[in-house]
Amino acid sequence: MIRISIDAMGGDFGPEVVIAGAAKALERHPDVTFLIYGLKVQCEPVLAKYPKLRDKSVFHECELAVSMEEKPSAALRRGRYVSTMWRSIEAVKLGEAEVVVSAGNTGALMAMAKFCLRTMANIERPAIAGIWPTLKGESIVLDIGATIGADAQQLFDFAIMGGAMARSLFEVDRPTVGLLNVGVEEVKGQEEVKEAGRLIREANLPTIAYHGFVEGDDIGKGTVDVVVTEGFTGNIALKAAEGTARQIATLLRESMSRTLLARIGYLLAKPAFDRLREKMDPNKVNGGVFLGLNGIVIKSHGSANADGFAAAIDVGYDMARNDLNAKIRQDLAIYHARRQPPAGPEAA
Amino acid sequence: MIRISIDAMGGDFGPEVVIAGAAKALERHPDVTFLIYGLKVQCEPVLAKYPKLRDKSVFHECELAVSMEEKPSAALRRGRYVSTMWRSIEAVKLGEAEVVVSAGNTGALMAMAKFCLRTMANIERPAIAGIWPTLKGESIVLDIGATIGADAQQLFDFAIMGGAMARSLFEVDRPTVGLLNVGVEEVKGQEEVKEAGRLIREANLPTIAYHGFVEGDDIGKGTVDVVVTEGFTGNIALKAAEGTARQIATLLRESMSRTLLARIGYLLAKPAFDRLREKMDPNKVNGGVFLGLNGIVIKSHGSANADGFAAAIDVGYDMARNDLNAKIRQDLAIYHARRQPPAGPEAA
Repeated sequence: MIRISIDAMGGDFGPEVVIAGAAKALERHPDVTFLIYGLKVQCEPVLAKYPKLRDKSVFHECELAVSMEEKPSAALRRGRYVSTMWRSIEAVKLGEAEVVVSAGNTGALMAMAKFCLRTMANIERPAIAGIWPTLKGESIVLDIGATIGADAQQLFDFAIMGGAMARSLFEVDRPTVGLLNVGVEEVKGQEEVKEAGRLIREANLPTIAYHGFVEGDDIGKGTVDVVVTEGFTGNIALKAAEGTARQIATLLRESMSRTLLARIGYLLAKPAFDRLREKMDPNKVNGGVFLGLNGIVIKSHGSANADGFAAAIDVGYDMARNDLNAKIRQDLAIYHARRQPPAGPEAA
Repeated sequence: MIRISIDAMGGDFGPEVVIAGAAKALERHPDVTFLIYGLKVQCEPVLAKYPKLRDKSVFHECELAVSMEEKPSAALRRGRYVSTMWRSIEAVKLGEAEVVVSAGNTGALMAMAKFCLRTMANIERPAIAGIWPTLKGESIVLDIGATIGADAQQLFDFAIMGGAMARSLFEVDRPTVGLLNVGVEEVKGQEEVKEAGRLIREANLPTIAYHGFVEGDDIGKGTVDVVVTEGFTGNIALKAAEGTARQIATLLRESMSRTLLARIGYLLAKPAFDRLREKMDPNKVNGGVFLGLNGIVIKSHGSANADGFAAAIDVGYDMARNDLNAKIRQDLAIYHARRQPPAGPEAA
């Protein structure tokens, strides 16, 4: 049984979408029970529409919801201990749930999750890992916005954590990991990235296969399972790619409605377009994973629909069932054990 | 009359494509004359096919071509003074041409251009500016790979130089300029970016309209005329976007050939697809501009076809005709004049 804690008040649409998403996820994962944190007036009528979900969940009434626009520091001050966001995270801390899923304000969620769960031993700063659709399937890209300007050791930690996540999500034994860099020889990127490359190569971990540097266009090709970069570049790469996808969709729509023949052609090829749309649908691949905390936190896109929120729950389910954090701790332990000097006569 | 210097040996296809591209550009710009630098054996038979171009150009035989794989330092050592790349750049230095266009090895071209032309007064490091197709038309993005980890002053210089380029390319009086940043409140990006924002705002230049921060998806929307970032992030954003465009094209092609109905639909809508393809064609918008050097250098994609190389020449033509570097010098002069303390009694 997997216990999933849900912040019902997060996202652009609140309980209407979040609870509907949980109901969809329950159909796929009958072994799940939910802890739902929300404002009673808004949640009860929606929950009443999903009797199966209501039977498999416990509703916890809260007095406060964090808004999507609230600054993280303000949200933390106002919402600590009492908000739906805080209490849904706290359920993981208290061992009442294996994972928490929220579509709320990213900054506030990260601030509360850090404050409530704290970072793991040996991890200095957390990362947000995104799932990126590629020509080969899916890849993990981290960090997409938590740690601006990570140093070499932090990039190394991201590689370990991303590797553990890939093992939980893709069911591969030794995922390939690449460091995002620019391709021009000799100016080959930042010192931190070069140094991180050396660290990963020298560690020679049994849990990841280090591929070397990858470039921006390798992400979409699916060259590696895990792409590692610091949060500034990762966030901008992700949004630049999303922007390009939307741009092409808009141009395609314009082109296809321009002439009668094009409109007929569009109708005939509609199933093909639908297939493409489904492949690139941001709701299908949804769920950023906060890595490096003492508890698994999944962030759904704020604009996700019920299918999108259900997809984020799917990610949380996989992470919990495959015990993501145990994998990360194991991998970190292997690395740190190796770094200990061997106990010899000198130590005596 | 605009005199354009051409490195005929650059790019994946060499003179075959470069010379054909120059011939195409000449049709659009009859006021251009060319200086063509190449290896005689390879260039003469191609030039013979374009008598109009041959009449409007002077061929300079060189003894050496820089390869696409050569390391910049090696290329500089081996090719200085003698290679087609060096000599085509030198023509600008000697005042024999207004602009040089090369499809050669980016790193080598930048190394040689810096060594031969030197950076402008008050500019510490050069930038490469790319032209990005957007929903509104085109925007300029810089730096896309020359200056890894620019500081606030360098980002400020990029804003001035990008603004001057936008005035030369788009014929607007006061282009809008945005600084690329991540959207999460309070962690709002790197210190350099915040500081650059302050510098640009305080300078309050008459030549650019500072918009503030923009995010990755604002690039494709065309939110601003000029997007400023350091070279690492800019390079990765550009390649991530290119990768996404290729990924969607591949998926679309697959979807459209999957069923008979889709194939018929595709044929009916073909003009619409062609229109889209043309809009997103990397050959249509081609030509990275090296900014901050004492001379205008245009870098064509190495994989460009003749249309692509002609498009890079178009960019060079616009930059030369609008006297890009005079604009940059003027804008820098306005800024630095304002920073001088006023001469008062204290100065006497």
